[in-house]
Amino acid sequence: MTAFPVPTLPAPPVAVVGLGQLGGSLTAALVDAGRPVSGWDVDPAARDAAQARGVTVSRELAGIVVLAVPLPAMGTALDGLTVDPDATVTDLGSVKTPVLERLGPRLGGRFVGGHPMCGTERSGHTAVDPGLFTGARWALCLEQDTDPHRWLRVAEMAIAVGAEVVPVTAAEHDDAVAAISHVPHLLAAALAAAADEAGPLARALAAGSFRDGTRVAGSDPAFVTAMVEGNAKPAAAAPARVQRQLDRPWPELVAAGHAAATRPAGRRSVRVPLDRAALLALGRAGGAVTRRLAAFLDGWVPDAE
Amino acid sequence: MTAFPVPTLPAPPVAVVGLGQLGGSLTAALVDAGRPVSGWDVDPAARDAAQARGVTVSRELAGIVVLAVPLPAMGTALDGLTVDPDATVTDLGSVKTPVLERLGPRLGGRFVGGHPMCGTERSGHTAVDPGLFTGARWALCLEQDTDPHRWLRVAEMAIAVGAEVVPVTAAEHDDAVAAISHVPHLLAAALAAAADEAGPLARALAAGSFRDGTRVAGSDPAFVTAMVEGNAKPAAAAPARVQRQLDRPWPELVAAGHAAATRPAGRRSVRVPLDRAALLALGRAGGAVTRRLAAFLDGWVPDAE
Repeated sequence: MTAFPVPTLPAPPVAVVGLGQLGGSLTAALVDAGRPVSGWDVDPAARDAAQARGVTVSRELAGIVVLAVPLPAMGTALDGLTVDPDATVTDLGSVKTPVLERLGPRLGGRFVGGHPMCGTERSGHTAVDPGLFTGARWALCLEQDTDPHRWLRVAEMAIAVGAEVVPVTAAEHDDAVAAISHVPHLLAAALAAAADEAGPLARALAAGSFRDGTRVAGSDPAFVTAMVEGNAKPAAAAPARVQRQLDRPWPELVAAGHAAATRPAGRRSVRVPLDRAALLALGRAGGAVTRRLAAFLDGWVPDAE
Repeated sequence: MTAFPVPTLPAPPVAVVGLGQLGGSLTAALVDAGRPVSGWDVDPAARDAAQARGVTVSRELAGIVVLAVPLPAMGTALDGLTVDPDATVTDLGSVKTPVLERLGPRLGGRFVGGHPMCGTERSGHTAVDPGLFTGARWALCLEQDTDPHRWLRVAEMAIAVGAEVVPVTAAEHDDAVAAISHVPHLLAAALAAAADEAGPLARALAAGSFRDGTRVAGSDPAFVTAMVEGNAKPAAAAPARVQRQLDRPWPELVAAGHAAATRPAGRRSVRVPLDRAALLALGRAGGAVTRRLAAFLDGWVPDAE
């Protein structure tokens, strides 16, 4: 891993398109961090709510442009808006390959796909929380042609709102989130629907394990369907991995689940150069970037298992 | 439904065998409710902890004897203890048919199987919480030969610690908990183990939906395995119902899960006589008993759907 100097420049302004739970929370967190931030939403109520929180409402976008819109709207979110031709564009979508396929050809190295791993079953601008990103992992894509300095500016923005940045490729990201997000959403829906079928007595007896296991079934169904359909291939393959686990003898299955759920989450500090291969290796090891220094990025990887 | 007078007698003493999370919490809640309560545990540390909370430690059991021991210990929990031959015996086990088969022949109408639908992934006497039963459903079995007045005394005890009593048969209970407890435990284990297999990057990106979906995988594996194996037939059949849901087209599955998870939980008050058929009908409608009057039991059923 070769270290090389990383230029220190003033933080660019951030322009967020879409001011629902994620986009609105990002603008609120950036306002709190003292960063210049503007926002736009097709919904006047969301614009008004953002303005009341100190966000400049504007159709002129420059610096880092964040697409915080639902996946189906990603390709048209910039229509009718004025975008600085040198702007870096990132998004907060829950799948990365389809967004990259859509925006990559148009934006090239100026596009940096992103996905903050947070959000709750609530949605919309009334669910805005400036602390939403604190301690969250934020996947940030480094493709072959991604400009590493643009990647760094987006990473700095994520770090400024309290997140830890996980370097990934879009394809690796989509496989990973199928296992840890899309399958949990599908299982929660299936569990809730199956208990519903079992009748009122079963529902009346439902307690902690059922509530936990079905919590995300309360999420907006249009959002969940778009998320899963947007990652159709990995999401269709992942339930089979869960099924293979369910086919194990119960004591073995329960012990494996317990070991996985209770593995100590140790971490050790590392320094990583702004280098695609080094950063992707950090992400594959389960690590994240937490800070930038002059020439290095601070981060962590899990303790050796 | 015929109403008939229910005798009002002084509350009997309660003797709890097993002072871990459930048994210890029950004694603590009964002490808080001003009920006479004694306890016994094979572990001296658990006995000492209970004594420090105002519980009389004794091997002489009378009144309502509560077996709060793990399922495999249920048949031998009374060995070496002195039990009043007129005592009513109940248990807190998570499956009811095997306990009934084990204790029913010995105790007949004196045995009233029970299952409070609470408890957390913590266990043991250090996890004792006198508020554990507040608002919880407590399934209480009414078999053909259950003495309804003994059933009522146990129900009154459950109500005294803040629970709502769901009248069930052991078989109905075991089918219901397979759907709302045993399958969630198995799915949580399978989800955690499958994500573990997917590698460190997936684990590093795991967020809300994964944490919720795997929370109960942190439960004591011996406890979970005993619980599921103790309800082997219903627990083996229930995952197929979840699988059938997973086979539906995603938009349909997600919509069904959302509808089930967000159905308003309305309730209306009803009065029910102390009559097995009437009480079981209340339970099958998803209702519960909340109070006893002179001749009636107060309860609720869900609003008509």
